[in-house]
Amino acid sequence: MIPIAEAFRLIKETVVPLGTEKVPLANAVGRVLASDVASDVDSPPHDKSVMDGYAVIASDIQAGKTKLKIVETIVAGSWPEKPIANGQASRIMTGAPLPAGADAVVMIEMTESTGDEEVEIKLDSLESDKHVMRKASSLAKGKTVFVAGHQIRPTDIGLLAEVGAHEVSVYMQPKISVLPTGDELVDSSEVPGLGQIRNSNGPMLVAMAQAIGLSVTDLGIGRDNESDLQAAVERGLQSDVLILSGGVSAGMLDLVPGILQKLGVEQVFHKVAVKPGKPLWFGVLKRGDSQTYVFGLPGNPVSSLVGFRIFVRTAINMLMNKPDPKPQSVKAELAFAHDVRGNRPTYWPGRWVASPTETRKVEPVIWQGSSDLRALGVAEVLILLSCEPSHHPAGEIVDVVELI
Amino acid sequence: MIPIAEAFRLIKETVVPLGTEKVPLANAVGRVLASDVASDVDSPPHDKSVMDGYAVIASDIQAGKTKLKIVETIVAGSWPEKPIANGQASRIMTGAPLPAGADAVVMIEMTESTGDEEVEIKLDSLESDKHVMRKASSLAKGKTVFVAGHQIRPTDIGLLAEVGAHEVSVYMQPKISVLPTGDELVDSSEVPGLGQIRNSNGPMLVAMAQAIGLSVTDLGIGRDNESDLQAAVERGLQSDVLILSGGVSAGMLDLVPGILQKLGVEQVFHKVAVKPGKPLWFGVLKRGDSQTYVFGLPGNPVSSLVGFRIFVRTAINMLMNKPDPKPQSVKAELAFAHDVRGNRPTYWPGRWVASPTETRKVEPVIWQGSSDLRALGVAEVLILLSCEPSHHPAGEIVDVVELI
Repeated sequence: MIPIAEAFRLIKETVVPLGTEKVPLANAVGRVLASDVASDVDSPPHDKSVMDGYAVIASDIQAGKTKLKIVETIVAGSWPEKPIANGQASRIMTGAPLPAGADAVVMIEMTESTGDEEVEIKLDSLESDKHVMRKASSLAKGKTVFVAGHQIRPTDIGLLAEVGAHEVSVYMQPKISVLPTGDELVDSSEVPGLGQIRNSNGPMLVAMAQAIGLSVTDLGIGRDNESDLQAAVERGLQSDVLILSGGVSAGMLDLVPGILQKLGVEQVFHKVAVKPGKPLWFGVLKRGDSQTYVFGLPGNPVSSLVGFRIFVRTAINMLMNKPDPKPQSVKAELAFAHDVRGNRPTYWPGRWVASPTETRKVEPVIWQGSSDLRALGVAEVLILLSCEPSHHPAGEIVDVVELI
Repeated sequence: MIPIAEAFRLIKETVVPLGTEKVPLANAVGRVLASDVASDVDSPPHDKSVMDGYAVIASDIQAGKTKLKIVETIVAGSWPEKPIANGQASRIMTGAPLPAGADAVVMIEMTESTGDEEVEIKLDSLESDKHVMRKASSLAKGKTVFVAGHQIRPTDIGLLAEVGAHEVSVYMQPKISVLPTGDELVDSSEVPGLGQIRNSNGPMLVAMAQAIGLSVTDLGIGRDNESDLQAAVERGLQSDVLILSGGVSAGMLDLVPGILQKLGVEQVFHKVAVKPGKPLWFGVLKRGDSQTYVFGLPGNPVSSLVGFRIFVRTAINMLMNKPDPKPQSVKAELAFAHDVRGNRPTYWPGRWVASPTETRKVEPVIWQGSSDLRALGVAEVLILLSCEPSHHPAGEIVDVVELI
């Protein structure tokens, strides 16, 4: 049984990041940049108006008596042909380039049109630069906007499009296979008979991997039958990551370790000092130019979830070369006292406590242990609680990992 | 110009939730439950072992001298045939049903096999119920596990599978169309010419809608040309929600409002007292049995993002009948003082400040206004800051909305 930190270290030591590929921006969400992205343009590309109105010389504006001659109309996408001299203005639309000579913009709401050729400005004065965004003030050509290792978020697509990153160089994403095992499992559409339970781990693990954008092969239920199970494991070993659940505890009918050994999968570790999920198994099949990483998650559903969220996702992040692959936690205040039983640090299901006046507080939910999936229906986070000390008073600052 | 709260109220008053449908569990992530889900089974379905080991009578265990006769081997998925009497034990696997008579389980690691027929227990004593999970202690048949209105998360799929919800009744998801407008726009793969900028809003809005699981039609760039623009808007009106960006400010070339009016889209509101994003336009096309909701977002990219995140997503949530459709915020502490200029409440781009000892702190990032997309590359959240008072001291507790 190894400590959590040692499990992370061994995963890091074992996992070789995947190669890189170019993908169109439309498919880039969730991918990790393989190289820095710099802007190939100035943004804005020219001094521009940020309002609809009139481009003017600010010092022309005087209380109650500014009438300006209109020399031109400038729309976004066009280019001004005439410079502005004192006493002149150009109609200008939001986003359009500022004409030479002008140094500010008057909002259309602050003007009155007095015919096509003249506009009256209803302001007492105007500062230079008002409603003007200067060339390159947001982004200068050549400036780095995202560094290698950044995981692209949906909101980043706008900035990437703006700087011309219509294709991005990213790390390849691992392909995942999921194989829950056990003769006691039946599909969720069936009514379980005596001694049977529904397969909850398979669909859950598939959904959790898909939710982070991965392509997942659902291998169905692996039965406690050597030849069938071996065939399923062999299919799974064609992926980058094979996730098994069940079949890795010390029981005599656990065929999985033998099959993995037979197929050349080397054990890296078995059993981690963590609750739930102690019997976690991790191994690797090394081929000439590629590897398959195998996780054997305990069959209890909460153990499977924690094993995936904490350890499998770390390996996935490492395959995608994320600089911070371990589960990201935030600090929160424990809403009430909680005691941890046993000798392992515990990821206890918890939820946020809404408060109109306070920053984040978190409370443990009622949970009977690794097979009590009901707790996860109300949980939002996992609260990492040490076993030494085992008593955690209300107000303690704890590490909290989002469930998803 | 209406206050933010009035915009939410008008959206709520206007939006009619979509109907319901049944979807298989594998496609249910992100969907909102249309009815409560109750368990159709007891979980666990029987008293069960949560360890590999031996099912015993706890009071049989005595320091240094417990040898028990093995009567049977019980695996997960099988059913015990023989009851346990004093001096007897059954081999039992994790998840397997406890045999009659037994009231506790000894972990295999605490035993020594002395042949096939006898096991030695290396414990001084054992509590009743040890390593046993009692029937229905996690879930009782008929008990509600999720209430209508719950939005299904990837981690919920396990519990739903366990309770037999292989199909779930959910609200339909809106179909979205995205139409950025403007003659100044070029595709991100092109090099912008004089007065041109790349289309960043289109790809960003598509990515943001896809990230919440919606089916999105990208209508391309709408040009400032009445017949082409009208054709694109007509296509968009076949969706449940049409999102336009650009073309809704007061400029003379803004064709969009006229086209929308011509096509029967009724304005609900135009202009919200919010920064960025004041020129937000919202309307509805009412047909006999369905509606299309139209949002005109300002062309500036940060305005578009905030308009989508705060208002469009609220409408989407209402269409899916989420009980809490408005943007969910958390409380956080402002890391340093910040002043808001102008007369509108502001969603200021911000990011979390990591602290090893403190709960959530947030800091505003440098941001020049609605066309400064660069700020969003480093932002993680939007910090809602009032304009009265406009000064926000360090340590103030503020409302924070996650960017995504």
